[in-house]
Amino acid sequence: MWSTTDIAMMSRAIMLARRGRYTTRPNPNVGCVIIDSHGAIVGEGWHQRAGGPHAEVHAWRMAGDKARGATAYVTLEPCSHYGRTPPCAKGLIEHGLQRVVIAMTDPNPQVAGRGIFMLQDAGIEVVSGLMADEARQLNPGFLSRMERGRPYVTLKLAASLDGKTALANGESKWITGPAARQDVQRLRALNCAVITGIETVLADDPSMNVRYQELGYLQQQLGEDELIQPLRVVLDSACRMPLNARLLQLSGAVLLVSCQPYPAEFCEALPAHVQCVQLPGIDGRVDLAALLQYLGKSCNSVLVEAGATLSGAFVSCGLADQLILYQAPKILGAAGRNLLQLPPYQQLSQIPALQLIEQRKVGVDNRLTLKIGY
Amino acid sequence: MWSTTDIAMMSRAIMLARRGRYTTRPNPNVGCVIIDSHGAIVGEGWHQRAGGPHAEVHAWRMAGDKARGATAYVTLEPCSHYGRTPPCAKGLIEHGLQRVVIAMTDPNPQVAGRGIFMLQDAGIEVVSGLMADEARQLNPGFLSRMERGRPYVTLKLAASLDGKTALANGESKWITGPAARQDVQRLRALNCAVITGIETVLADDPSMNVRYQELGYLQQQLGEDELIQPLRVVLDSACRMPLNARLLQLSGAVLLVSCQPYPAEFCEALPAHVQCVQLPGIDGRVDLAALLQYLGKSCNSVLVEAGATLSGAFVSCGLADQLILYQAPKILGAAGRNLLQLPPYQQLSQIPALQLIEQRKVGVDNRLTLKIGY
Repeated sequence: MWSTTDIAMMSRAIMLARRGRYTTRPNPNVGCVIIDSHGAIVGEGWHQRAGGPHAEVHAWRMAGDKARGATAYVTLEPCSHYGRTPPCAKGLIEHGLQRVVIAMTDPNPQVAGRGIFMLQDAGIEVVSGLMADEARQLNPGFLSRMERGRPYVTLKLAASLDGKTALANGESKWITGPAARQDVQRLRALNCAVITGIETVLADDPSMNVRYQELGYLQQQLGEDELIQPLRVVLDSACRMPLNARLLQLSGAVLLVSCQPYPAEFCEALPAHVQCVQLPGIDGRVDLAALLQYLGKSCNSVLVEAGATLSGAFVSCGLADQLILYQAPKILGAAGRNLLQLPPYQQLSQIPALQLIEQRKVGVDNRLTLKIGY
Repeated sequence: MWSTTDIAMMSRAIMLARRGRYTTRPNPNVGCVIIDSHGAIVGEGWHQRAGGPHAEVHAWRMAGDKARGATAYVTLEPCSHYGRTPPCAKGLIEHGLQRVVIAMTDPNPQVAGRGIFMLQDAGIEVVSGLMADEARQLNPGFLSRMERGRPYVTLKLAASLDGKTALANGESKWITGPAARQDVQRLRALNCAVITGIETVLADDPSMNVRYQELGYLQQQLGEDELIQPLRVVLDSACRMPLNARLLQLSGAVLLVSCQPYPAEFCEALPAHVQCVQLPGIDGRVDLAALLQYLGKSCNSVLVEAGATLSGAFVSCGLADQLILYQAPKILGAAGRNLLQLPPYQQLSQIPALQLIEQRKVGVDNRLTLKIGY
C-alpha cells in the first residue's frame, strides 16, 4: 500500500515535527513535506510555536507554485477550523495539492476527520494511517489531553541501586551525577508543568524552574528566548506554603493547589505570577484525578518531581503513564529513604506492570524509561 | 617492545585459558600457545582440571619436535615445583623452547619467579608482563587466595528498580525472570563456594546447588560429569540448622559454620558430606574475616547469596570485592524488603565506592557487575 517514497517522506516529516517539541505547546508537534511528481522535495516545514504558522504553511510557502499537483505528507490531519491561523485543509486546497498523505487523524474534537473531509470534498486524494504509531509518539501529551482530558504524566525518579533517594538523615546532594541533573533540566523544558509536593518544598526549598545555562547540548538547538518555563505546581493541601519559598521568588507561573482556601492575607502577599486553586481532597490530600482534570485544560504533559509519598500516589491511582528513573551506581543501605510508597501488595501479581522502553547511560548514571500499565 | 604477533598469540592464550574457568579450581586458569620461527601456531592448550596436565604440557605435546627453537606464550609463569605434575619450566627446557613470553608471574609462593629463573638459567630468553592486566582478570579468585590468603568475594543480589528483594510478606517468587535465574546457576558453577545465612535457610529452605539442566547455553560447553558443585556454606552462629533442611539432603559438600559447638547428637545425625566448623564470633555473628581466612585454604572464589543483613555485613566489613546485581524492571514499593543493611551513614562521602564494570540484559532483567572499593 505504501511506497518507499511514502515511507521516506513521512519519516522526514516526523523528524521535522520533533524539532518543535520544546516550543509548540499546547499545540501538537507536526511536520510536513511536499514532493513534486518526480519525488523531489519542493517544500517542508514544522510547527514551531503556538500562534505561529502550522507545518503545512511553512511547506507550501517554500513550495510556491510547485505545490500545484504535488503530494503533501503531514504527520497529523490538517486542521479544518479557524483558530489563530486559517484552516490548513483550506490552504492545501487553494495551493492545488493533488494528494495528501496523513499519518493520523487529529483527535482534537474541533478537527477529528473534518480536515480529511474538506480535502476529499475538494477532490484531493487523501490516504491516512502511514506510520501512525510513530506519529502518535510525537505527541503523547497532546493526545492524552485530547483523548483523556488530562495530561500525560511522567514521574521523574532518582535513586541508588538499592532504591534509595537519600541517606536516613535526608542527605542527597548528589546521588546522581552532573550529566543526569542536566538531563532533568531538559526533561523539565519538555513538559508543560512540573508538579511537586509541599513536603519537598519545605525540606529542600527547590526552584523547580529550567535554568537555560544547565540545558547542555540543548542550548545549541534552543535559543534562550525560545525556552518556555513549565508551570510549577505545588500540592499544598493544608496551605503550608511559606511566602519566602524560593520558587515563589523566581519569575514564571506557579500554581498552588490546596484543599482549603488560603488566608486572604497570604493571597494578597503573593507575586502576580502565582495563582492559587482549591481542589477536592481525598483523606486530606489533593485528589490527583481532579488535579489532572484541572491541568488538562492547558497542559499536555506534566513531570512529577516529588518524594516517595506523592510519586507513589500517582502510581497507586493509576495516573502515572511513564517513569523516568536515573539510577546512580551507588548503594546507600536499607536505612536510606525509599523511592516509592505503594500499597501493601500481598502478591507479586498485584504490582504495577512496567515495560522498559529505553535505557541509556547519562554520564555515570543509567536512565531508564518505563511505561506503566501498558 | 611487543610485536603484533606477541599480542595476537597472548590474546589467544588468554582466550584458551578462559575455557577452563568452570573446571580448574583450586588451580588457576592458564593458556599456552607455541609458535615456530615463521609465526605459525604449532601447539596450544589450556589447563583443564586440577591434577590434569598444565597448559604448557598440552601445547608441547601438540607441538612435538616443532617445539625446538620455538616461542611459547603462557598466561602465567610456568611452575617450578613438583606438584601433581612435574614442573613446566623443566618441561619447556627439555623440549628446546628458545623464547618464553609470560603475561604475569605466579604469586604462588611455591613459584613466585622461580619458574622464570629456571628458564633463564637454561639459556631461554624470557620476557614477562605482556597483557598482564588481562591475565590477572582470568584469575581473580586464585590471585586473591595467593596474595591475600582469602577468596575473592562476589555478592549476588537481585532486586526491583526500587531496591526491594521481596514484598513485605516475603513473597519473592519470582522477582527476576528465568534467564536471570539461569545465569545465577552459571555463577554458582563458577565459584568454589556459595555462602548463605541460616535465616535464608530457615525462610526459604534453598538447595543452593548447581542444577545442570538449568545451566542453559553452558551445557554445550560443560559436560554433566565436568560440573563441580560448589561447597555450600551456611553461617549458623547459634546452631539453629534443622536436620531436615533441603541442602543437607542433596549430595555435594556442605560446611556449617557456627560460633559454638553443635550438639553431639546433631553431628552424629549429619550425612557424611556435611562438615561443621566453629569459628570466632563478633557480637554473636560469625567473624567474616575469620570465615574467609578459613575458606581461603581451599577456595579461590565465593559467592554470597544471602539476605540484607549478611550481604550488608560483607560490604560493611570491606570484605566484598564485587557485586553482581540482577535488576528486574519492577517496582515493589517502600514496604518491600530491603537489599542491603549498611551502617547509618551521615554523609554521602561515607558510602562504599563502586565502579560499574559491566552491564547487560539477561532476559528481561539487567545484570550489573560492580567492583567495590576500587
